[in-house]
Amino acid sequence: MKVGIIGATGYGGLELIRLLHNHNEVEKIKLFTSSDEGAIFSQKFGHLKKLYDQPLEKIDADTLAELDVVFTSTPSGVSSKLLPPLLNSSTKFIDLSGDFRLKNLEDYEKWYKKESAPSDAVEQSVYGLSEWNKEAIQDAKLIANPGCYPTAVLLSLLPLLKEDLIYANGLVIDAKSGISGAGNKPSMMTHFSETNENTAIYKIHEHQHIPEIEQAMKMFANSDTPITFTTTLVPMTRGILATSYAQITPCTTEEQLYYCLVKQYQSNPFVRIIKETAKFGTNQVYGSNFCDIHVKVDSRTGRATIIAVIDNLVKGAAGQAIQNMNIQFGFDETTGLMQVPLYI
Amino acid sequence: MKVGIIGATGYGGLELIRLLHNHNEVEKIKLFTSSDEGAIFSQKFGHLKKLYDQPLEKIDADTLAELDVVFTSTPSGVSSKLLPPLLNSSTKFIDLSGDFRLKNLEDYEKWYKKESAPSDAVEQSVYGLSEWNKEAIQDAKLIANPGCYPTAVLLSLLPLLKEDLIYANGLVIDAKSGISGAGNKPSMMTHFSETNENTAIYKIHEHQHIPEIEQAMKMFANSDTPITFTTTLVPMTRGILATSYAQITPCTTEEQLYYCLVKQYQSNPFVRIIKETAKFGTNQVYGSNFCDIHVKVDSRTGRATIIAVIDNLVKGAAGQAIQNMNIQFGFDETTGLMQVPLYI
Amino acid sequence: MKVGIIGATGYGGLELIRLLHNHNEVEKIKLFTSSDEGAIFSQKFGHLKKLYDQPLEKIDADTLAELDVVFTSTPSGVSSKLLPPLLNSSTKFIDLSGDFRLKNLEDYEKWYKKESAPSDAVEQSVYGLSEWNKEAIQDAKLIANPGCYPTAVLLSLLPLLKEDLIYANGLVIDAKSGISGAGNKPSMMTHFSETNENTAIYKIHEHQHIPEIEQAMKMFANSDTPITFTTTLVPMTRGILATSYAQITPCTTEEQLYYCLVKQYQSNPFVRIIKETAKFGTNQVYGSNFCDIHVKVDSRTGRATIIAVIDNLVKGAAGQAIQNMNIQFGFDETTGLMQVPLYI
Amino acid sequence: MKVGIIGATGYGGLELIRLLHNHNEVEKIKLFTSSDEGAIFSQKFGHLKKLYDQPLEKIDADTLAELDVVFTSTPSGVSSKLLPPLLNSSTKFIDLSGDFRLKNLEDYEKWYKKESAPSDAVEQSVYGLSEWNKEAIQDAKLIANPGCYPTAVLLSLLPLLKEDLIYANGLVIDAKSGISGAGNKPSMMTHFSETNENTAIYKIHEHQHIPEIEQAMKMFANSDTPITFTTTLVPMTRGILATSYAQITPCTTEEQLYYCLVKQYQSNPFVRIIKETAKFGTNQVYGSNFCDIHVKVDSRTGRATIIAVIDNLVKGAAGQAIQNMNIQFGFDETTGLMQVPLYI
Repeated sequence: MKVGIIGATGYGGLELIRLLHNHNEVEKIKLFTSSDEGAIFSQKFGHLKKLYDQPLEKIDADTLAELDVVFTSTPSGVSSKLLPPLLNSSTKFIDLSGDFRLKNLEDYEKWYKKESAPSDAVEQSVYGLSEWNKEAIQDAKLIANPGCYPTAVLLSLLPLLKEDLIYANGLVIDAKSGISGAGNKPSMMTHFSETNENTAIYKIHEHQHIPEIEQAMKMFANSDTPITFTTTLVPMTRGILATSYAQITPCTTEEQLYYCLVKQYQSNPFVRIIKETAKFGTNQVYGSNFCDIHVKVDSRTGRATIIAVIDNLVKGAAGQAIQNMNIQFGFDETTGLMQVPLYI
Repeated sequence: MKVGIIGATGYGGLELIRLLHNHNEVEKIKLFTSSDEGAIFSQKFGHLKKLYDQPLEKIDADTLAELDVVFTSTPSGVSSKLLPPLLNSSTKFIDLSGDFRLKNLEDYEKWYKKESAPSDAVEQSVYGLSEWNKEAIQDAKLIANPGCYPTAVLLSLLPLLKEDLIYANGLVIDAKSGISGAGNKPSMMTHFSETNENTAIYKIHEHQHIPEIEQAMKMFANSDTPITFTTTLVPMTRGILATSYAQITPCTTEEQLYYCLVKQYQSNPFVRIIKETAKFGTNQVYGSNFCDIHVKVDSRTGRATIIAVIDNLVKGAAGQAIQNMNIQFGFDETTGLMQVPLYI
Repeated sequence: MKVGIIGATGYGGLELIRLLHNHNEVEKIKLFTSSDEGAIFSQKFGHLKKLYDQPLEKIDADTLAELDVVFTSTPSGVSSKLLPPLLNSSTKFIDLSGDFRLKNLEDYEKWYKKESAPSDAVEQSVYGLSEWNKEAIQDAKLIANPGCYPTAVLLSLLPLLKEDLIYANGLVIDAKSGISGAGNKPSMMTHFSETNENTAIYKIHEHQHIPEIEQAMKMFANSDTPITFTTTLVPMTRGILATSYAQITPCTTEEQLYYCLVKQYQSNPFVRIIKETAKFGTNQVYGSNFCDIHVKVDSRTGRATIIAVIDNLVKGAAGQAIQNMNIQFGFDETTGLMQVPLYI
Repeated sequence: MKVGIIGATGYGGLELIRLLHNHNEVEKIKLFTSSDEGAIFSQKFGHLKKLYDQPLEKIDADTLAELDVVFTSTPSGVSSKLLPPLLNSSTKFIDLSGDFRLKNLEDYEKWYKKESAPSDAVEQSVYGLSEWNKEAIQDAKLIANPGCYPTAVLLSLLPLLKEDLIYANGLVIDAKSGISGAGNKPSMMTHFSETNENTAIYKIHEHQHIPEIEQAMKMFANSDTPITFTTTLVPMTRGILATSYAQITPCTTEEQLYYCLVKQYQSNPFVRIIKETAKFGTNQVYGSNFCDIHVKVDSRTGRATIIAVIDNLVKGAAGQAIQNMNIQFGFDETTGLMQVPLYI
């Protein structure tokens, strides 16, 4: 396998490099840049010395066409322009940005406040929620890799919605995230002294992952109801904890919710359903491709609290992208992805 | 004013010392201990050198009876035994533990899993939510100072519930807290390496602040509905961000919610209603007695998201306790409490 | 007292506001800006709502001339141009930048890589190391407030150097600092995800505080030897811990070093000499104007390890500046500065 | 390979599991306990669910004798008693505690304040500084795996001392460490609220790694001089940055120091010598077995500053232990250890 990465200097790109480095099927990784051609990558990123001492290459259609797969890990609005002309080559593409996720182009323009990708490119893209869209992923030319928040939310809610164990109506999702989700561009929002010892809510009801979650709930669980979704930044680098609150349907029990999840994911190596726990946190998946899920019913209110934790840079970005590559190319799904979490 | 503190070595006690040190009306602070009589306080707590070089004193009824007010900042189950025999003296008491908060003794025993205080002591205690119970506080012999989570939640929800702008039914409260709320007793739950780079939910649906919030909602807003309430620990020392989700009543607008809050708190110096903000976080009240509140309506779902931030050790504990002392003794409510937040 | 602050939006300026807010002698604080005239300050800094709801004013010579004292807390290279024309007014100036600290203008240009202030302005400036230069500060028109690192280093080393208890020759100083010292301008250096879970050394042997320390060692201890000085950033917001290693002179004991420090600072309220301690850290001065000092002799090597901790924004910047103002205007040195440290 | 771990529930043990999990030559890992026999390991450590769902086993000589290698990652004072009776079996042992490191038993008892291991066991132990003791490691029955601080210090200083480019006399070492080095036992020293936003020096001149460093300097560089060594805890979980200050010998240049290091380690995959860098920090080795070294000469003072960074749990403990196992068993030194650092 020859692999290319466009956007290697971002956190998604760097995480792709970290994970692909120990992927048995990957023989060659090429890193592309729009601005810094010829620069030795490990001189920009000292942690890669002895590992990636090769130069960045110019983005070039012919070079890309010789690769088996290209990951684009670019800010929104970039791959929508870059990829469409390249889709006739034999190369497969996995886009980690949001540019090809929303099938409704107006939704993209409304929530991202940017021009959408052309409709034919969006149409042929496949939503890469690995555990839920495996068949389409196998045949995909272009994969729209899911957002970090949607991955945690959807993996934990889709089975329960699909089996009508919880109501979509009234669903409230409160997601907490580490700061790396905001990328590597310095701003007051990500400035250490403003972020440390601070827990802050932002983009209330306006996060661009809202339509992505709603679209997937419709697609995979036939649920067509707007959700309440907020995102809170907590002072850590990696990790998402998404807490969802839902009314359970009549006569549903905690046991049923638990076994519905267990059954759904029994043959999926990366989703772990946790029955009993005193403390359920993001560190149990740190640095790994796992998504851990826990559910509790409150008999006083008849509501369930459903919690999912992922590493936003792994299962929420680069890890799931590689999982999708594994599916696309017929490798075992776990190839290169069985890192043990660094819980400390 | 002569003031005593029982439980001075805990975080609540230390914060009382920090704040009372610059309180103009306080002439003398005595620190009491059950186990460490005679120890020089600043030798145990180096940050107080030159400020509190006095010895800890034995808890003694006669000594306490000479004081104007005594704060008890002890683990639950201590003041319930310690205070009842002392209530005949002329001294006033402000208890920062949960021992006198719940009027229903069975609730205490169910949620705290401890024996309750005697019913007559509980009956005469006054719930010290400063902005909502001022008259009763003025005459109180024994104040049950509110919990940290209830303070943030109640200040932000009571006005809206009372004015029927939101429904209590279906209310979901997702609170995030720094680690200092867990006190100073070492445990795996508060061990640095387990807590750092980790966001974790705990005691799901079982937190002892749930009946306290419900009792106050009934008392001040005549609302008698069980709530969904969860608590998540984030890797920082101080701060609570409580996010509440509620269905709004018909024809209610964001403006109405905002003005209801503004009107409720217009003469309250410590509650600030924030209209517009890109990022709303705990650092804007760090080290201060402020409670900041922000509200947004999601027109897509007809739900409001109401957020409150406090410093759990100040407005959520020692600060509110001193505010209550100010009210009890007829001082200006802000005496000794007008610290500017350390937003960095 | 009417006080002005130029550079109020930086971390030094914000800390001046925090501390001056509770200063009994200060009646009015005016905030000046070069770019944002008329903006309501508390709309830019939400933590100041209800506290500073006044507009920013244009920097204007006549307005400044009506003030008793003006603090300039600006990036290096600004006050060197701004202040010289204003020095004929009756206003006193306290500059928190490095622009007036180095008497040798070539040193300034070499270490700061900027054009120096005019020589006559530099000549009349007084180095504001409060505990060591009190007489000159009393009469100063323009105070050059010391840097954060020099404050910690000089307070701990000057007494020992002056009394010839340690050798200047061979002196090694290893200083650790929180990130707020780097100011509020976003950069990769201060980006949360790059800084969190990272301890990093920077500007090795090239920090602009080196000549400042050497100049003061000569001035106050007649010591004229180049020092080895490094600075390491640790993932916290506030605090400096400066560790110095020095050969002790023959027959000198740990006791002598300790009592030399005790004697030097016995009438100085903000310097505390700590004799015994299991753990000596920055949190014991957090948010306060204290400088704590601890010394240990290693009998195996004949060297002393001398450690000082300060809050870089208080004793290392705004606090010492206000202490200097108190000295200049004949107030008690501690006015407005007796905050108890927030050790948690 | 069949591998055993005694002390699997500590941070060293957990890190061994993390790294051995992807080691191609390891077929079976058995986890031993002295107190919790039969407990399912992943129920104690949720992050290992699906990865280590096996029970803990009783420590038993016969079971251990069937294994190829056993790692002991226990508190000091445990393996000194546990291992000596087992040394007649064919199993090899790698001890991560300090119990077999110091050849001088009095030194052990003085610095560790515990009874030493028996002298014959200590005599046959081999100090496992992989890059410097490869031959002895190949034949070792019992490896004393180096301490975290000594690993960083020795790798960076030994080449320069051995080549007489720096003086051992006057050497000052200032090491900074994340909190995980203190292990998993809760205490005030490691309590989150006491540790966060705090940088603190401890055990000044008394750290038990001092005699270990001095012993190795004598052994590998023939240098017999006491060192000044201090350790400072910084608020992060993983990482050590060790800064050493040394007088350079006459006519020595920065280039010479750099090339001496490059030459020493040119065939060592885990040591990287960094020539130019604006910021040199622990995150560039986070989660990996690398040791990065940087050196700068200060022409003003004639002293060199030599800095090394490692992950204390990997190169400073479990990683180096596995590297030693690879050497002992004739595998490629990098087997299972080529993780890319998680620099964010």
